[in-house]
Amino acid sequence: MTLTKRCIAELMGTFWLVLGGCGSAVLAASFTAEGAKIGESTLFPLGLGFVGVSLAFGLTVLTMAYAIGHISGCHLNPAVSFGLWAGKRFPGSELLPYIASQVIGATIAAGLLYLIASGKAGFTLSGSNPLATNGFGAHSPGGYSLLAAFITEVVMTFMFLMIILGATDHRAPAGFAPIAIGLGLTLIHLISIPVTNTSVNPARSTGVAIFAGSELLAQTWLFWVAPILGAILAGFFYSFMFSEPAIESRQRMKEIV
Amino acid sequence: MTLTKRCIAELMGTFWLVLGGCGSAVLAASFTAEGAKIGESTLFPLGLGFVGVSLAFGLTVLTMAYAIGHISGCHLNPAVSFGLWAGKRFPGSELLPYIASQVIGATIAAGLLYLIASGKAGFTLSGSNPLATNGFGAHSPGGYSLLAAFITEVVMTFMFLMIILGATDHRAPAGFAPIAIGLGLTLIHLISIPVTNTSVNPARSTGVAIFAGSELLAQTWLFWVAPILGAILAGFFYSFMFSEPAIESRQRMKEIV
Amino acid sequence: MTLTKRCIAELMGTFWLVLGGCGSAVLAASFTAEGAKIGESTLFPLGLGFVGVSLAFGLTVLTMAYAIGHISGCHLNPAVSFGLWAGKRFPGSELLPYIASQVIGATIAAGLLYLIASGKAGFTLSGSNPLATNGFGAHSPGGYSLLAAFITEVVMTFMFLMIILGATDHRAPAGFAPIAIGLGLTLIHLISIPVTNTSVNPARSTGVAIFAGSELLAQTWLFWVAPILGAILAGFFYSFMFSEPAIESRQRMKEIV
Amino acid sequence: MTLTKRCIAELMGTFWLVLGGCGSAVLAASFTAEGAKIGESTLFPLGLGFVGVSLAFGLTVLTMAYAIGHISGCHLNPAVSFGLWAGKRFPGSELLPYIASQVIGATIAAGLLYLIASGKAGFTLSGSNPLATNGFGAHSPGGYSLLAAFITEVVMTFMFLMIILGATDHRAPAGFAPIAIGLGLTLIHLISIPVTNTSVNPARSTGVAIFAGSELLAQTWLFWVAPILGAILAGFFYSFMFSEPAIESRQRMKEIV
Repeated sequence: MTLTKRCIAELMGTFWLVLGGCGSAVLAASFTAEGAKIGESTLFPLGLGFVGVSLAFGLTVLTMAYAIGHISGCHLNPAVSFGLWAGKRFPGSELLPYIASQVIGATIAAGLLYLIASGKAGFTLSGSNPLATNGFGAHSPGGYSLLAAFITEVVMTFMFLMIILGATDHRAPAGFAPIAIGLGLTLIHLISIPVTNTSVNPARSTGVAIFAGSELLAQTWLFWVAPILGAILAGFFYSFMFSEPAIESRQRMKEIV
Repeated sequence: MTLTKRCIAELMGTFWLVLGGCGSAVLAASFTAEGAKIGESTLFPLGLGFVGVSLAFGLTVLTMAYAIGHISGCHLNPAVSFGLWAGKRFPGSELLPYIASQVIGATIAAGLLYLIASGKAGFTLSGSNPLATNGFGAHSPGGYSLLAAFITEVVMTFMFLMIILGATDHRAPAGFAPIAIGLGLTLIHLISIPVTNTSVNPARSTGVAIFAGSELLAQTWLFWVAPILGAILAGFFYSFMFSEPAIESRQRMKEIV
Repeated sequence: MTLTKRCIAELMGTFWLVLGGCGSAVLAASFTAEGAKIGESTLFPLGLGFVGVSLAFGLTVLTMAYAIGHISGCHLNPAVSFGLWAGKRFPGSELLPYIASQVIGATIAAGLLYLIASGKAGFTLSGSNPLATNGFGAHSPGGYSLLAAFITEVVMTFMFLMIILGATDHRAPAGFAPIAIGLGLTLIHLISIPVTNTSVNPARSTGVAIFAGSELLAQTWLFWVAPILGAILAGFFYSFMFSEPAIESRQRMKEIV
Repeated sequence: MTLTKRCIAELMGTFWLVLGGCGSAVLAASFTAEGAKIGESTLFPLGLGFVGVSLAFGLTVLTMAYAIGHISGCHLNPAVSFGLWAGKRFPGSELLPYIASQVIGATIAAGLLYLIASGKAGFTLSGSNPLATNGFGAHSPGGYSLLAAFITEVVMTFMFLMIILGATDHRAPAGFAPIAIGLGLTLIHLISIPVTNTSVNPARSTGVAIFAGSELLAQTWLFWVAPILGAILAGFFYSFMFSEPAIESRQRMKEIV
């Protein structure tokens, strides 16, 4: 595949990550409907809650990893591209085109999501996290501090890259990495939505912030710095601590057989 | 397998998709029960909500793809058959028998679901989406416009076919496609139930609309046009942009080894 | 493995199915806790609801199928044993020891569950479905009629066996059957808990009914007749319609390669 | 891999198990937000409930098993190490360094979780299970007795080890064990959170108890004794009842082929 085609795949995949993950949050997270009695009213909490939104984010990555993993590697995330570079799995020369494609895909998805959401009568961008944006302080869903947000994003992205680097290691069972990585992103959301609405992905944060107003956009720096820092640390750590050349590993297999 | 046997498999699989997906929505989505205190009443929201219904739709496809994938390819959906045809994976001469089988299977399931549901004392077809029908405007669960519904169905089916075409590509890991495709349908429901009650499948929409009255049936055109349009676009796009002949791919593997 | 060891595996697996599936329902389905404000009270619906119980039943089968599939085939269910016999995958001579082991395992689990549940202060067996029993009419969770219950159990078990027979077909991808079958049981619960509390398994129904009183035990006949009928129909149907001898299939593979 | 590197992997993996599992419980289990009307208030139960927390615990193991399974075997749990030793899969000489690494990793995670949680204005350690600790009697989420807690932990860990020993048996399909084991831990949580808040893991219990005060720490003995007892029983049982030497198994395969 040419670099252009791989970048188109990254653009499309990141489009899906933002449309699916943020879309499920915006359209379906808090949906109620009449039809069953709860308490004194007749509203039933049909909406996804955090479990459904976490599942949606993870499934965007799981589905795309099987769909375009063989085309572009399915990073869908500037922090992942940086982490794979630090772990010696991705050439630095392709960082810029990959990241640009990811941000463009995320932005198109955010625009489309805005268009769909505004097709509902009475829709307005409101709340502290319109369009499922990421934030800290007043824009943290649970009101967490800048420090808590920073630590959370660094640690979550560090562990996300450990999962990616480990599950795609030549010693891990082949074909299962998309399950581990996709459900790993689900897990990260199950933990950290209350803190930052969960980013671990600068493209995802930037795409929706563009449409959500300057106050949210002004917090986007954290969702570039913290995830990329965590990812690069993980790349260096895995490479230094756990890597084994494929040749050495094959040699060992032969000795066993 | 003869075409007849493959059509029987498609009929049975689409029967399962509608009985399982729409059945979970009709029978279990908003179930409450006494036994635990919530608010001032003693009703607990045991029902599935959107997460459970989304899971049910996806699992009908996951289970059938492992059960009959080796028999008929497990399309269960006219849009999927059209998309695979556009992607050069399915002969146009078999489109009609496949689609007819899918619509028959969906209709039988809707009838059986109606029969089971009416076994509950006091059951009546009611609400804006009886039998889990699809709709827009007044029949959209969240009151979304025709335009929002159309865009959503086109984009969701486009991405559904990208997942199908990618995950069944000869370069993707073998055996995992049913997981990616089934959970992909779960993801699509997590996003778009509030907009159209999620179709991406003309057979599913038609089967239940037949039993739900003329007003719902009159909206069915959108759930033929939009999903098939999205699917055909995806078939052409994947084929043009990402396909690689199996021979060329094998050649490359040999060079590596 | 000797027949004795295989029967011990079946006993243990069915023990796990009942302890896990019925246990999650009895202990955790409707759990509430203080700590967050909902409505006017401070109770949060932490409990599993139908989604969690459905997941639990499915995961008992998924986990056991990987754990003991290579030992006994992991039926855990008299209807499955009958269906595999009808589909020519299991010798009739082993039906009785397998089914006896399954019923014993289910009964031990029900007793242990009763013991654990009674470790909570104020515990009493109550409600229309104590110990997560199956029932119809007054003992159907949603008040469904005998006819609706019978049809539902026949159809659900028929489709369960289609999934089992298809996913373990020599033409289906190897190793994935436990995922398809386990999540298939989850799906069946997502659909049919409101109707019969979902059986599709005579051993599971009998095990808990023994401890739940004569009124529940008197309804157990339906959960022997309907599931075994559905399973046998599926076995004959798959065998007649979709089976292909392994030899013919291998021959075709060679022609392709 | 050297023992040191394997112990670092165990430390990191157990860190993830506690941060992910207990973190999801502490930060997100009972989260509510304005934005949709439920009952008379405007609070929606967005929080994870037991289903989300159960999923999070299981996914920590699933993701780590793919990420570091090829490095350390991914025990993440003193009971698992003991059970594998009893099942003749792990040398007794490495029990102490593995268990020490697991307890250190769990403790670091608990400290980090405390730090993040305290970044929310007004945070205090409160309730009967602060930091998602395990307990019985007054510290059992559902008020279960010491006896019920002990039996539950023994049986759950016994079955957990049966899943681990079975799914990693050389006769089970390769590569799927992390799915069976991870989702097995999810299942165990779906059943037993109300009883003990679910341990089956002495390191997980100890790590959070250290920060939760002396009353919780005083109950930790049960979560060492019961899980390790259950695990050792399972190791001996599987080894005695179901094991087959790899050589004998290969011989049989050859006879078939």
